[in-house]
Amino acid sequence: MIRGVTVVPVTGPEAVIRDGAVAVADGEIVYVGPADGLPDGFTADRVLGGPGMVALPGLVNAHTHAAMTLFRSYADDLPLMKWLEEAIWPLEQKLIAEDVYWGTLLACAEMLLGGTTTFADMYFFMDRVAAAVEKSGIRASLSRGLIGIAPNAEKALKESRAFVREWHGRANGRITCMLGPHAPYTCPPDYLRKVVAMAAELGVGIHIHVAETRQEVEGIKKQYGCSPVALLAETGLLDLPVLAAHCVHLSPEDIAILAAKGAAVAHNPESNMKLASGIAPVTELLTAGVTVGLGTDGAASNNNLDMLEEMRSAALLQKVAREDPEALPAYAALEMATIGGARALGLGDKIGTLQPGKRADIILLNLRRPHLYPPHDVVAHIVYAAQAGDVDTVIVDGNVVVEGGRLLTLDLDTVLDNARHCALRLVGKPKARSLL
Amino acid sequence: MIRGVTVVPVTGPEAVIRDGAVAVADGEIVYVGPADGLPDGFTADRVLGGPGMVALPGLVNAHTHAAMTLFRSYADDLPLMKWLEEAIWPLEQKLIAEDVYWGTLLACAEMLLGGTTTFADMYFFMDRVAAAVEKSGIRASLSRGLIGIAPNAEKALKESRAFVREWHGRANGRITCMLGPHAPYTCPPDYLRKVVAMAAELGVGIHIHVAETRQEVEGIKKQYGCSPVALLAETGLLDLPVLAAHCVHLSPEDIAILAAKGAAVAHNPESNMKLASGIAPVTELLTAGVTVGLGTDGAASNNNLDMLEEMRSAALLQKVAREDPEALPAYAALEMATIGGARALGLGDKIGTLQPGKRADIILLNLRRPHLYPPHDVVAHIVYAAQAGDVDTVIVDGNVVVEGGRLLTLDLDTVLDNARHCALRLVGKPKARSLL
Repeated sequence: MIRGVTVVPVTGPEAVIRDGAVAVADGEIVYVGPADGLPDGFTADRVLGGPGMVALPGLVNAHTHAAMTLFRSYADDLPLMKWLEEAIWPLEQKLIAEDVYWGTLLACAEMLLGGTTTFADMYFFMDRVAAAVEKSGIRASLSRGLIGIAPNAEKALKESRAFVREWHGRANGRITCMLGPHAPYTCPPDYLRKVVAMAAELGVGIHIHVAETRQEVEGIKKQYGCSPVALLAETGLLDLPVLAAHCVHLSPEDIAILAAKGAAVAHNPESNMKLASGIAPVTELLTAGVTVGLGTDGAASNNNLDMLEEMRSAALLQKVAREDPEALPAYAALEMATIGGARALGLGDKIGTLQPGKRADIILLNLRRPHLYPPHDVVAHIVYAAQAGDVDTVIVDGNVVVEGGRLLTLDLDTVLDNARHCALRLVGKPKARSLL
Repeated sequence: MIRGVTVVPVTGPEAVIRDGAVAVADGEIVYVGPADGLPDGFTADRVLGGPGMVALPGLVNAHTHAAMTLFRSYADDLPLMKWLEEAIWPLEQKLIAEDVYWGTLLACAEMLLGGTTTFADMYFFMDRVAAAVEKSGIRASLSRGLIGIAPNAEKALKESRAFVREWHGRANGRITCMLGPHAPYTCPPDYLRKVVAMAAELGVGIHIHVAETRQEVEGIKKQYGCSPVALLAETGLLDLPVLAAHCVHLSPEDIAILAAKGAAVAHNPESNMKLASGIAPVTELLTAGVTVGLGTDGAASNNNLDMLEEMRSAALLQKVAREDPEALPAYAALEMATIGGARALGLGDKIGTLQPGKRADIILLNLRRPHLYPPHDVVAHIVYAAQAGDVDTVIVDGNVVVEGGRLLTLDLDTVLDNARHCALRLVGKPKARSLL
C-alpha cells in the first residue's frame, strides 16, 4: 500500500488526489483514492510513501533498442548514413549474445531508476534480452528485428516464431512479444506479407519503424509509387495491432490511414532531433485520434533512456515547431508517456493509469526538491521540471524494484563493469574523449 | 586540491586529462594537468575527487530571473500575452522584497545543486537578490530591471546607480553588476541613451532582452523603421559590453552588427521553445564570431534552472531546426555553457575554463551511473546524457558549496518552506493541480 502521497492517476487532466492512497493486492491495484476512503479492513504488509511524494503510473518507453546503451556517446554529431555505416553497423556486427545481455541489463537499470516500468524493444539475441527483462523486474514488449533484405531473413522469421512461442506471457505476464520487421525500406512487401501472416497466426502485434526520414519516404515513393504508410496498408500490416515508431514524415492521407486502421505511433522526439530527422506531426496525430506513445529510441541516438526528459522535449518541440505555446500541453505529454504508450503496446487494459483492476506499475517521485518547488502544478512539474533522479520508488507488477532511489533487483557494479568490458571489446582502440 | 578524476578543462574539443588534478590556492586555480605533474612540495588541506568523477568548469547561466522560481509551473501552455497579462504580471505586482529574497535563494539552491556556479540576473529588489547571492555562495552578475515606459523609470535609474555602487565587486568579487534596460520595446531610445551614459560612467556592461519574439521585431520596425539590433546600435548601446538575451529573430545584418560591435548573446532554447518564440540562429552567430552563452531564462518559462539540460536542448534544437546532425556538436554546447557564458558576462578572464590564474569555480560530476555508462565520450555524456542529479561537488571561488550532492551553504528546508509560504500568499486560491 502507498499512502500519505499525492496521486496523479492519469485518468484526466484535473485528476489529482491529495492525501491519496493506492492499495495493491497480488500485484493488482485494488484501490485508488483518498486515504480516508480505503476499504474497511484493508491491511497492508508494507506501507510506502510519505510527504512530498507523488504516485503516478510507471512510464512506458514505447520504442527503444535497449542494448544500444553499449554504444552510448560512441558516435555523435554525424550525418545519419555516416553514423550508421561507419560507427553503429560495424559495432553491431561484432555483437555477441552476452553483449546484448549486459547492454540490456544496463538499459533496464537506467530505465527503472528513471521511473520507466515498461519498454518496447526491437533488437537481436532476443532470448538474452528476455532474460535481462526477467531478471531486472521490468515489463517489456519484445520483438526480434527482421531485415527482409538480409541473407538470414527467413531464418530470422523462424527464430521470431520460436521466440514468441517461448516468451510471450512469461515472467507472470511481464514479457509480451511482437514481430519486428525493421522498416518498409528494409523489408519488401512480400516479406512483410509473411510477417503479417505469422503475426496473425501467433496472435501478436507488429513493431516497425515507419517514415523516420525524408529520404526513406522519397525512396519508397520512387520504388513503389506510394508512401511508406500506404505501402504498409497495402500489405495488410495495418490490419493487425501495429506499433509504428517515428512517423516523422507523414502526409494528411497517411495520418488518416493510421487513424482509420487503429495503428499506434511511438514518437521519439530527442532521437529525431539529434539525428536531425525532423519533427513528427504529433498534434495532428492526436487530433486524428491516433494513439501516440513516447519513446527514447536507442541510447546511441539520444543519449539516455530518460522518459521524464523525453516528455519535456516532446512538449517543447511541438510548441516551437508550430509557434504555438498551447500545443501539446503538459497533461498530453504525460498521457503519451503512460497510457498512450501502454495502449500502443497493446497493454492499455493492464497498465498506463492508476485504476483498480490494473497491474501495479507505480512510481513515486520526490517533489521536495528545490527544482520542484513551490508546487503550483504537479503535472507541469512532472513534465517541465522533474529529472530522473527525482524517482524515489518504482513498483512493477506489484514488486518494489527501486526504493529510496536504489535498484533492488540488480547489482549495479556488476552491470556497469560488464557493460564497460563489452564496450571495450567492441570498440578496440578508444577515442580521445573516451574513459573506457 | 582535486585529484583522481578526469579533467575536462574546456580549453579545446579534445582536451581531456585522465587521472588529472586541479590544485587551488586562495580561491585561485594554480595547477591543471596530470596528477603526476603536480608541483613539487604542493600540499593540500583537503583532497576531493575519486574514481568516476569528472571535473569541469562551473556552468554559467547567462540569463535568468532567479526569483521567478516562485512562479514555477504557475501558468503553462498559454499564449505569451495571456501568460504575461493574466498570470505573471499580476503576481509580479504583488511581489515584496522578501519574496524576491526567498525566490532567489531557492534558485541559488537549485542552480548550485545542478552545477551552475554563476548566473546573470535581471529583476527587482536587487539588494535582496545580492543578499541571497552572498549567502548562498554562488557567483552572479546582477542588473536591476529598467522599464523606460514605466512611471518609475527615472527612479529606477537612480536605484540602479546606487545598487551598482553598493554591490559591484562585493563578496570577494563574486557579485558584479550591469545595468538592465528591459528591452527596446519597453525602453525608448532616449531612455536607452541615459542608460548608456550611466553604464559608461559606472564602468559596467548592459543586460537587455533583444528580438525575443517576431511581434517585438515587427513592432520596433513599425515604430522606428529598423530592427531592434539596429536601434540599439543607433543609441550607442552596443558600444559598451552588452549581454543581449534571446536574439531569436535576427537578420544577417543584425548578426553582422552584433559581431562587429562585440556584443554577446545569451541563448535560451527551452524558454524560446516553451513560449513558442522561435529558434535563435546560434550556428550563424557562432560562425560570425559572436560570443554566445546559454541561459535558462526564468523558471516560469522553463520550468527549471538546469544548465545540463539546457545544453542538450540547445544542441538538439539546432540540429533538428537545420536538418543537420552536425550542427552545434557537443563540445560547442559545452563551451556555450561555460566559457561562452563567462565571456558574455564579462568574466572570461576570471572563470569559464579550468586554467591556472582563474578563480576556482569547479564542479565534479559522478559518471558512475547507469545512464552515463559505458564512458565512450565524456563530453558527449555531459551534454547528451547527464542530469543535474549527477553533480556531486561544487566549488565557487575556492569554497566547497556542494559536496556529495548536498548543499552546504543553506538550510534547504528553510528555503523550501519560505518559498512555499511566499507562493501561497502571492497566488491566493491554489488551482486544481496545485499542492501548495
